[in-house]
Amino acid sequence: MPQSTGCILWFTGLSGAGKSTLAGRVSSALRERGARVEVLDGDEVRENLSKGLGFTQADRDINIRRIGFVANLLARNGVIAVSAAISPYRAVRDEVRSKAQVPFVEIYVEAPIEVLEARDTKGLYKKARAGMIRNFTGISDPYEPPLNAEVVVKSAEESIETSANKILGYLEKRGLLR
Amino acid sequence: MPQSTGCILWFTGLSGAGKSTLAGRVSSALRERGARVEVLDGDEVRENLSKGLGFTQADRDINIRRIGFVANLLARNGVIAVSAAISPYRAVRDEVRSKAQVPFVEIYVEAPIEVLEARDTKGLYKKARAGMIRNFTGISDPYEPPLNAEVVVKSAEESIETSANKILGYLEKRGLLR
Repeated sequence: MPQSTGCILWFTGLSGAGKSTLAGRVSSALRERGARVEVLDGDEVRENLSKGLGFTQADRDINIRRIGFVANLLARNGVIAVSAAISPYRAVRDEVRSKAQVPFVEIYVEAPIEVLEARDTKGLYKKARAGMIRNFTGISDPYEPPLNAEVVVKSAEESIETSANKILGYLEKRGLLR
Repeated sequence: MPQSTGCILWFTGLSGAGKSTLAGRVSSALRERGARVEVLDGDEVRENLSKGLGFTQADRDINIRRIGFVANLLARNGVIAVSAAISPYRAVRDEVRSKAQVPFVEIYVEAPIEVLEARDTKGLYKKARAGMIRNFTGISDPYEPPLNAEVVVKSAEESIETSANKILGYLEKRGLLR
């Protein structure tokens, strides 16, 4: 019998916006409260479920659908399934949401691209500007922000604690935490 | 906190040997005992994780690795993850076993191919003999039986109850059932 309430926490946002860091922080907090949490790491999922796929819209969409499929399998078994892939396209995010048999919580990690590009912690924006990386979200590929995300965090303005607490507060309010 | 003990039940055997039927029976019995069970249906997995892959050894191996990856994610979160794909190649079955972070229970559903071909419930053997289906396990493709399966059931000789009870008995003995 389900002991914890399963749901999908779907982080979306530009490269470098802080999705993975925030997802990790929230996951730790959830585990401390006794929840089962599985973070579907973007790289690990690509390696194991989507090897050979690239970053065109078609390939990204396939990858996102696969993450959604696995997240739903986990969540319907009581796990809080966390995705922190960029997932730039609104239509496929909404498709994953519509197929979910569990509560789907979209978390938009918003940050101005100018800030992210100036910070450029991984050096990816520089490479994208130089044409060394194709299909780079925000530079040579679009990012379509959510229109009705359950939670919006502003990672360039807020502390990570503030952002994490917003998310935890939302989950409590929705009755998704014991 | 984990309530049930997760593990992977990996059924393997020829087409028509009764893997899915037996997996369904065992799953129902496990659910009645309060376990969380997820059956990774071969067709559903191909549709959602492996669209475009065929039935060559290379493609089958990729598909089996993906089932193994997802089964492990589920099982390490306390779910009994059930696979009932043919999975004809020993090496990739053993690879999935070696990567599993949970108990891996291989169940060989053994039946003589002559019996299955004579029965031919889905008409697939006839089509394979006629060359209408390529890469058909047992006809135009090999089937490599497990050398050390945890459970062997003989579906052409035993009743489904006998086979199911063998499996449940094994899980009890291993301490995988509460």
